[in-house]
Amino acid sequence: MAVYTDVGDAEIAAFAAAYDIGRVISLKGIAEGVENTNYALTTDRGAYVLTLYERRTAAQDLPYFLGLMEHLAAAGLPCPTPVRGRDGECLRTLKGRPAAVLTWLGGLWPRDPGPAHCRAVGAALARVHRAGQGYAMTRANTLSLTAWPGLLAQARAVADGFDDGLADRAEATLEVLAAAWPKDLPRGHIHGDLFPDNVFFTDGRITGLIDFYFACEDDFAYDLAVTLNAWAFAADGSVLRGHARALADGYESVRPLCAAERAALPVLCRGAAMRFFLTRLFDWANTPDGALVVRRDPMEYWRRAQFHAGVRDVGDYGLTP
Amino acid sequence: MAVYTDVGDAEIAAFAAAYDIGRVISLKGIAEGVENTNYALTTDRGAYVLTLYERRTAAQDLPYFLGLMEHLAAAGLPCPTPVRGRDGECLRTLKGRPAAVLTWLGGLWPRDPGPAHCRAVGAALARVHRAGQGYAMTRANTLSLTAWPGLLAQARAVADGFDDGLADRAEATLEVLAAAWPKDLPRGHIHGDLFPDNVFFTDGRITGLIDFYFACEDDFAYDLAVTLNAWAFAADGSVLRGHARALADGYESVRPLCAAERAALPVLCRGAAMRFFLTRLFDWANTPDGALVVRRDPMEYWRRAQFHAGVRDVGDYGLTP
Repeated sequence: MAVYTDVGDAEIAAFAAAYDIGRVISLKGIAEGVENTNYALTTDRGAYVLTLYERRTAAQDLPYFLGLMEHLAAAGLPCPTPVRGRDGECLRTLKGRPAAVLTWLGGLWPRDPGPAHCRAVGAALARVHRAGQGYAMTRANTLSLTAWPGLLAQARAVADGFDDGLADRAEATLEVLAAAWPKDLPRGHIHGDLFPDNVFFTDGRITGLIDFYFACEDDFAYDLAVTLNAWAFAADGSVLRGHARALADGYESVRPLCAAERAALPVLCRGAAMRFFLTRLFDWANTPDGALVVRRDPMEYWRRAQFHAGVRDVGDYGLTP
Repeated sequence: MAVYTDVGDAEIAAFAAAYDIGRVISLKGIAEGVENTNYALTTDRGAYVLTLYERRTAAQDLPYFLGLMEHLAAAGLPCPTPVRGRDGECLRTLKGRPAAVLTWLGGLWPRDPGPAHCRAVGAALARVHRAGQGYAMTRANTLSLTAWPGLLAQARAVADGFDDGLADRAEATLEVLAAAWPKDLPRGHIHGDLFPDNVFFTDGRITGLIDFYFACEDDFAYDLAVTLNAWAFAADGSVLRGHARALADGYESVRPLCAAERAALPVLCRGAAMRFFLTRLFDWANTPDGALVVRRDPMEYWRRAQFHAGVRDVGDYGLTP
């Protein structure tokens, strides 16, 4: 739930004049999303999203994110397309913040995803990986393996508040992961945060893939691990085998995994679970009580990490070994 | 900023099936509004607002509010029209709350209203008063003169927190108002809360009058007083004479005031200022620190009440005496 920056009628009229998008009819703050300010912008030509990028989205990364969306949309993926202004630019400033107008995508995100949703999202993720191949800009994953010890160091007290000794156990887990982390897997541009609320469906088909603001370059199989964690696990941390298998099958219908990726998947899944455990822990520690966002439970992801620690091979997820 | 009740994809699909509004394309929580939960609902037929009525809107009053909007819309006023379901009903239940689908209105509310906005809103208010004449349902004003001492009694400590002795001064003001309150003025259905964020403009014309959830029966001139307070005063509590005159002129272009209404206006304005002072004070005292709404400053309205106390006649507002 997030509208951090208020945009008024005169401000949007002046801003919209830089674009060839017609006359502004309405502007409504959207309550979803926790990182940036989003408005539903309608004009006499159509519907758009106006995004104002708040502090947590680094301004220097915006050309990478917007360029990637434009590249993927051009390849036929249903992701928002940044609209260029009359001057050819798609990034400008509004209320002192970087701001962009993007195309509006219909569809609703699934609150209770089933295997059919998982199959579709697996295939879409593989299409993102394939279509990203020709994209020339670069961005390192700032929330990867090497960043995790630093996140944990800042959130040890919160971790121990959830469960006595949890910080030490998390530290031991990070050491195991650092030693076991795979090298030389196929890599490229990844979404990095493909949770159900970032995927819109209409009549069972995906009509929107949004929120590319964690996109970066990393192992494709790591992105699959992030997505499996987000779509195919119960609240107690155990796998939903039918969901996981459908997601992997969907993925492999577009981009088959190599043997090294299949072998690495349990470690990647454990790492992906730790990434969200740690960022949620960090946010928990750093969200003031009065903030207009909902804090998300880090322990959901600790339980997934525990589950992955006991996995021998992808057969334990319900995937074909 | 308010989305109190989360509605999912399966829930909205089932709910929308009760209406002849087409297939749901998207549903986004709207961040504006503090009383109820509002969603922008788009279908393949058009755009709608889905409102879930939260605790503070009394369920037994909803037929009055929805009926009034339907009545006014039928008379040509640009207010939301409740959409009736296939069963003829416009009020049903979603997530355990009363819920309604209303037509979507374009336009933006003015952040910095000028005299031209005021003239238009004055005329629109008078049209509401005239068009409401044939509406048969009734609702007393639960936030009128007689309710104010009770509100103050619950917020004395907060009042004194703003300024030592303020509770006593407010009590004395309420006694003056009770003695001076006009009787037998022309009355009927009033909006009761026509603030700038409830009026949408497109190209200088009003294209939306919303939020009829404080509507009731009371003196027409009291509604004009509420509207003058909301549109024609500076933050220090002093009148913006050009704004006030334009608003009154706009009103009288549709419904001229009688001599008794003109004479009563300073008292009504002072009372209207106290009404918002007291409800803001009450909300200030009763909004938990972590609540997802922004608290509004009661003192803005105390300063207006002070200003009105020194007014001799409508000439002091810049109106033709």
